[in-house]
Amino acid sequence: MQLDQSGLEILDEDECRALLARAVIGRIVFTHHALPAIQPVNFALSDGDIVIRTSRRSRLATAASDTVVAFEIDDFDAEKRTGWSVVVVGHARHVSDPADAAALEALPLRTWAPGERDHFIRIRPELFTGRRIADAA
Amino acid sequence: MQLDQSGLEILDEDECRALLARAVIGRIVFTHHALPAIQPVNFALSDGDIVIRTSRRSRLATAASDTVVAFEIDDFDAEKRTGWSVVVVGHARHVSDPADAAALEALPLRTWAPGERDHFIRIRPELFTGRRIADAA
Repeated sequence: MQLDQSGLEILDEDECRALLARAVIGRIVFTHHALPAIQPVNFALSDGDIVIRTSRRSRLATAASDTVVAFEIDDFDAEKRTGWSVVVVGHARHVSDPADAAALEALPLRTWAPGERDHFIRIRPELFTGRRIADAA
Repeated sequence: MQLDQSGLEILDEDECRALLARAVIGRIVFTHHALPAIQPVNFALSDGDIVIRTSRRSRLATAASDTVVAFEIDDFDAEKRTGWSVVVVGHARHVSDPADAAALEALPLRTWAPGERDHFIRIRPELFTGRRIADAA
């Protein structure tokens, strides 16, 4: 078990990808009007990419176009004071290819919020950072 | 109940502050080496400020010094496909006043991770954005 300088267990890329494959909700981190912005989204994986569904006019669609974003998932247990987080950094791009968009329609990616969400964003993970707080018990 | 253009219920500042007062874990969003960065942290409130405990040499302490950050809390139910999120934007500053630091020592803010965390950061909320996905049922 490898620890970082804060004493947290370092999760390798395989562990990060496995946790991503099981998660349903993540948080996309981007810049909006030169300020740090974050938005929780449900997502699915396709060919290792994080896929998000939104509307074309959303703040997210506008801000996360051909740019580098971070994407975070985590799970913490306040009772046990344990948990883990995975942060992915990668390029976000709009899916403009109709064939790709049609294929993504088959993903289990129904949006939770009401309203039409006919637009897909792909994030290709380039950098993984995973950390776990070991159970003290 | 006021809805945004995505059909999400808008939470007002009082609701956001009430949710912050009950949360234990949040995510601080900042910029590191010109890239979007995010780190989950446990936190407490003091005079309405979000207070985080870290080590002086941490990436967070270095990056979140006299700068504008976002701070996010959320809670989602994957079964019911409901949940809420609160995003606060505000200035983060190091607590350098010894009297203030001594007072913050009394907060219920023990770090979960091992190692010394003798340094406090205050975030003064300036902008609140709260959203809730109404239960479809």
